[in-house]
Amino acid sequence: MVTIAVDAMGGDHAPRSEVSGAIEAARLYGVRVLLVGLQDVVVRELNQHKGWKKLPIEVVHASQYITMEDSAAKAVRTKKDSSIRVASRLVRDGVAAGVTSAGNTGAVMATAKMVQGMVHGVERPALASPMPTITGKPTIILDVGANVDSSPKMLAQFAIMGGIYSRAILHTDSPRVGLLSIGEEEHKGNELTKAATPLLKSLPINFIGNVEGRDIYKGVVDVVVCDGFTGNVVLKVSEGVADVVKHLLRDSLMSTLSGRAGAFLARGAFKDFKKRIDYSEYGGVPLLGVRGVCIICHGSSNGNAMKNAIRVAAEFASQDLNTKIESDLAQWTSSRLAARVE
Amino acid sequence: MVTIAVDAMGGDHAPRSEVSGAIEAARLYGVRVLLVGLQDVVVRELNQHKGWKKLPIEVVHASQYITMEDSAAKAVRTKKDSSIRVASRLVRDGVAAGVTSAGNTGAVMATAKMVQGMVHGVERPALASPMPTITGKPTIILDVGANVDSSPKMLAQFAIMGGIYSRAILHTDSPRVGLLSIGEEEHKGNELTKAATPLLKSLPINFIGNVEGRDIYKGVVDVVVCDGFTGNVVLKVSEGVADVVKHLLRDSLMSTLSGRAGAFLARGAFKDFKKRIDYSEYGGVPLLGVRGVCIICHGSSNGNAMKNAIRVAAEFASQDLNTKIESDLAQWTSSRLAARVE
Repeated sequence: MVTIAVDAMGGDHAPRSEVSGAIEAARLYGVRVLLVGLQDVVVRELNQHKGWKKLPIEVVHASQYITMEDSAAKAVRTKKDSSIRVASRLVRDGVAAGVTSAGNTGAVMATAKMVQGMVHGVERPALASPMPTITGKPTIILDVGANVDSSPKMLAQFAIMGGIYSRAILHTDSPRVGLLSIGEEEHKGNELTKAATPLLKSLPINFIGNVEGRDIYKGVVDVVVCDGFTGNVVLKVSEGVADVVKHLLRDSLMSTLSGRAGAFLARGAFKDFKKRIDYSEYGGVPLLGVRGVCIICHGSSNGNAMKNAIRVAAEFASQDLNTKIESDLAQWTSSRLAARVE
Repeated sequence: MVTIAVDAMGGDHAPRSEVSGAIEAARLYGVRVLLVGLQDVVVRELNQHKGWKKLPIEVVHASQYITMEDSAAKAVRTKKDSSIRVASRLVRDGVAAGVTSAGNTGAVMATAKMVQGMVHGVERPALASPMPTITGKPTIILDVGANVDSSPKMLAQFAIMGGIYSRAILHTDSPRVGLLSIGEEEHKGNELTKAATPLLKSLPINFIGNVEGRDIYKGVVDVVVCDGFTGNVVLKVSEGVADVVKHLLRDSLMSTLSGRAGAFLARGAFKDFKKRIDYSEYGGVPLLGVRGVCIICHGSSNGNAMKNAIRVAAEFASQDLNTKIESDLAQWTSSRLAARVE
């Protein structure tokens, strides 16, 4: 049975979403869940759910928690008994295989990096987000914001980690890895992408060269690599465009159909659509490159999102991605050294 | 009467779209159009349109043209009598007030910069694209690809040019100018945005600080400034997301409604929607910062897009944006010098 530590105090709706997600995950997937937070508060919430004591759920007390308003750097330094820190420690100490949190993203990332530590050979962690495509199978894009400025070598490491993610979790045979740029031709790009290209070519991956922004959603590439600034912009632009398109299409639909019948039909279509691209179905975004597993959820996550995040954390843990990342990086490093010696 | 030179050989459907756009623009807006290209080919196409000789349309011969497959740098160097080059020369010599082209974007930009020259005080031109918002009024984003790597000073110049564009063409009172970054707080961003912030604050504009990708489509900012790599990614991601959302929503709609009735209603809604965000309604994207006016159209532009591009070129020309850009830049430069002297 896989054990996952859940930061019960992190999200906007904590501990309600965290507790109901934990109960569902324990019930449906047989995951053992350690809910970390203020004992009284968490137990009171658990008691809203009849029969929870029969499930593999335990409460681990943490006397502090980090809020969304806290400065991440300061909170990580000063709140040594925060729920996220205690949860990360459980992973470090081997009590849990992974942690999930819907809390202050900066604080969660900094804590995981500091407490759990980095996978051998990885310089910086990366947030890897699945994006919907017209084929139905998501494309992974990384980094979407664990870092800001990135070096060519960091992009190479993201490519290895993204490829292993896609193979293990999405069962992609030989994932196609692309470098996000502004034209397909190799010479089209900025200083960073041009410097990264020869490194990406030297990796033990299926590198398909530059891809453009629109390719992310076409299903023509499995893993898209970019610096954290660009990736974060892509993520937020995607949200914005999806909203404006939905808004304008709803208007068009309402004026095409008439009155209440139109409203009724449109509502049905939009509900079905929402289910297809619902953030909560993906259950959060993994922070790749840290020891153990760390799944970061949206602050506004509901119980369904937390349930899926716990499921994804358990899947990641059972696949042992980190060993594979370590060995691929070591192989790459030694082949580059060998090439230099020759 | 404003005179606009049109590269008649540029687009994927040249000279058909160019000629029909010219005829419509001359007829509807009273713009005088100089169609530049192979004389025989252009006149033959014109003769498909009855009564064109009564319109203010003339043909200017150019013996060469640049294709989409040509390397921009090489074609600009070697094809000295290309249609875009001859058209740009007409602007430089004061025969036309502006040029529009649906040709090889790299070649059009390089030609305009070289032949027409830069506005005094502007280091690099910028492509400024209107983006649809939920309020109906577009947000301008620049640069979307005239440059790749950009300096903080270039971003400051983009901000001035974008603000003047928004005021003159979209009639925005005191346009809100934002810097595209990954968080609203000033300290959130990459090296470039952090270095650009103090410069943007010192400009004679309504600078509102950092904005995020999703803000572009919300109508909460009028002008969004970013480097050309990021802007180009934003543009292409927007296209990709709009496509995938339309695709998934159409699926949902077809399965909600039933059979042919559903298909019929969905088609109506999507047609109306397309009109609202149709690229061709904006009529191309201005290359700000070059002398005279240069409007760059999508390669696949139809006659409607060309017509609108000619209209936009005429509007730009009649507003004399460049004089305003020059004086604002000069004012800023002298105030910065004064601040240093004090």
